[in-house]
Amino acid sequence: MPGLRRIVLDVLKTHEPKLTDLAVKLCALDYVDGVNITVYEIDKSTENIKITIEGMDLQYEPIKDIIESMNGVIHSIDEVAAGKRIIEEVRTPQDRVKY
Amino acid sequence: MPGLRRIVLDVLKTHEPKLTDLAVKLCALDYVDGVNITVYEIDKSTENIKITIEGMDLQYEPIKDIIESMNGVIHSIDEVAAGKRIIEEVRTPQDRVKY
Amino acid sequence: MPGLRRIVLDVLKTHEPKLTDLAVKLCALDYVDGVNITVYEIDKSTENIKITIEGMDLQYEPIKDIIESMNGVIHSIDEVAAGKRIIEEVRTPQDRVKY
Amino acid sequence: MPGLRRIVLDVLKTHEPKLTDLAVKLCALDYVDGVNITVYEIDKSTENIKITIEGMDLQYEPIKDIIESMNGVIHSIDEVAAGKRIIEEVRTPQDRVKY
Amino acid sequence: MPGLRRIVLDVLKTHEPKLTDLAVKLCALDYVDGVNITVYEIDKSTENIKITIEGMDLQYEPIKDIIESMNGVIHSIDEVAAGKRIIEEVRTPQDRVKY
Amino acid sequence: MPGLRRIVLDVLKTHEPKLTDLAVKLCALDYVDGVNITVYEIDKSTENIKITIEGMDLQYEPIKDIIESMNGVIHSIDEVAAGKRIIEEVRTPQDRVKY
Amino acid sequence: MPGLRRIVLDVLKTHEPKLTDLAVKLCALDYVDGVNITVYEIDKSTENIKITIEGMDLQYEPIKDIIESMNGVIHSIDEVAAGKRIIEEVRTPQDRVKY
Repeated sequence: MPGLRRIVLDVLKTHEPKLTDLAVKLCALDYVDGVNITVYEIDKSTENIKITIEGMDLQYEPIKDIIESMNGVIHSIDEVAAGKRIIEEVRTPQDRVKY
Repeated sequence: MPGLRRIVLDVLKTHEPKLTDLAVKLCALDYVDGVNITVYEIDKSTENIKITIEGMDLQYEPIKDIIESMNGVIHSIDEVAAGKRIIEEVRTPQDRVKY
Repeated sequence: MPGLRRIVLDVLKTHEPKLTDLAVKLCALDYVDGVNITVYEIDKSTENIKITIEGMDLQYEPIKDIIESMNGVIHSIDEVAAGKRIIEEVRTPQDRVKY
Repeated sequence: MPGLRRIVLDVLKTHEPKLTDLAVKLCALDYVDGVNITVYEIDKSTENIKITIEGMDLQYEPIKDIIESMNGVIHSIDEVAAGKRIIEEVRTPQDRVKY
Repeated sequence: MPGLRRIVLDVLKTHEPKLTDLAVKLCALDYVDGVNITVYEIDKSTENIKITIEGMDLQYEPIKDIIESMNGVIHSIDEVAAGKRIIEEVRTPQDRVKY
Repeated sequence: MPGLRRIVLDVLKTHEPKLTDLAVKLCALDYVDGVNITVYEIDKSTENIKITIEGMDLQYEPIKDIIESMNGVIHSIDEVAAGKRIIEEVRTPQDRVKY
Repeated sequence: MPGLRRIVLDVLKTHEPKLTDLAVKLCALDYVDGVNITVYEIDKSTENIKITIEGMDLQYEPIKDIIESMNGVIHSIDEVAAGKRIIEEVRTPQDRVKY
């Protein structure tokens, strides 16, 4: 069973350690294929980032442990994908009404 | 007959169990190829999510049972696709008038 | 002659039977390759849906019969495509003036 | 010489005969590969439609004859493409000024 | 040397001769691979059109001669591409400031 | 070393010589694969153009010399790409804040 | 371990040395596959630029050293990607709320 394939996390972290170190650290998990981190808000001492992780059979707890060990706090899980292939969110006419 | 290929569900659930667990659970159904879950509204005790499921000959009732067993309620079915291949919704000039 | 290849229908239906049943039923027609149904308005007892059907040499009357047998009424045909290959609507500068 | 490859027509027609019949009729012309018809305005007795036709060495007059024989009037030709391959309209910075 | 590969022209012309005839005429030039013509403004006696021509080693003067022989006047050249392959215009952050 | 692969220039020039001549002239440089020129502002005696040049190991000075020899002045370099493959600008959430 | 694959930097620099020189210099690092630089603000003596670098196992410090040696200051790291393949940022419904 391929399990979890993608997870998108909203994270608050201090400026140090740097994004480059966090990304490389998360990729050291052997079930991680790739990590993307973008910054969407910068404050004096903190930054809000979005972390997208893709792989095979991702495990949430070890990912969370690494983020916390690098001064990050997960605010929310914004998207997950699981299964034999990664399915994208499908936009429907209801999106325009609900969102 | 390949039957139902995609179903998009608008679901209200409690924060626990987590999205990661719900996604992996739905993928355990053998006719499911992949699941995508996005969050579009978060409240103190609940969250509104959109679940996109793709596969071959999807069965609605077992999917509904899993969602309910994990503290979710299906509000509506927003899109379905069935057949030999997955057909996307076609946007027409009438969309601008009607929606 | 490959005849009709795609038809997009604006349909009003009661909530029951479900979209999943309607989609599977339409796919039982042997010239249908795939069906997509999206919901664009929900009322207390009815819903407005858009049905996109693709296949080879689609026949309008049997499609209409199935929709009506499942408590649906066709309001309008919003798009059709016919021929050896499915041609998409081409957007032109005049669209911005006329629509 | 491959001649005319695409033609986009703005047509006013009565509701009958149906779009499905008009599309199939146009495809009976042997140089037509495919036809797409979308509705962009519906009145009590008429509808404004956009017809996109693609093929090899399309002939305007026979196309016009079929449309008129099915209660349609061509208001304008909105796009044409000709040649060995179908060239798309290129958007330029001047479009934002002129259109 | 492959020379000029694409040229986009802003042209004012009388309604006659038709776009279909102009497009076919331009394709008769042996270095022309394809022609696309869109209408962006229609007046009582004239129409403003955009002509996109692609090919190998396009020659401006013969193209201009054909357009003028069919009651057209070139207002401006809006885009050109030349070289071994057709390069598209690249959008940059400065576009949002300058245009 | 493949060096410079793309350069996007903001140039002011007189109407003569024509864009077609400038594009062909730039392609005569043997390290140039293709040139695209778009017009984004036209005045009585001058025009503002954007020149996109792609190739292998592009040299800035000879390109500048050709532009100036054809009555053009480079206002700014808006984008460059260098390396084994052409990398596109990546849009990030910070773009919405900063630009 | 392929390490860091993409880094997007927000940099303030003086007009000299030119973007073309900075891009070529960064590509001389053997783990860099390609560099893209766009300008998003120009002042009398400085310019704000966005640098996108892709490669295998990118090292932040040498990149920073080159930028500083060419009169640039890194304001922020706006995006990083690491891993076996480059993962793009995934847009979610939460983006519309948070950004």
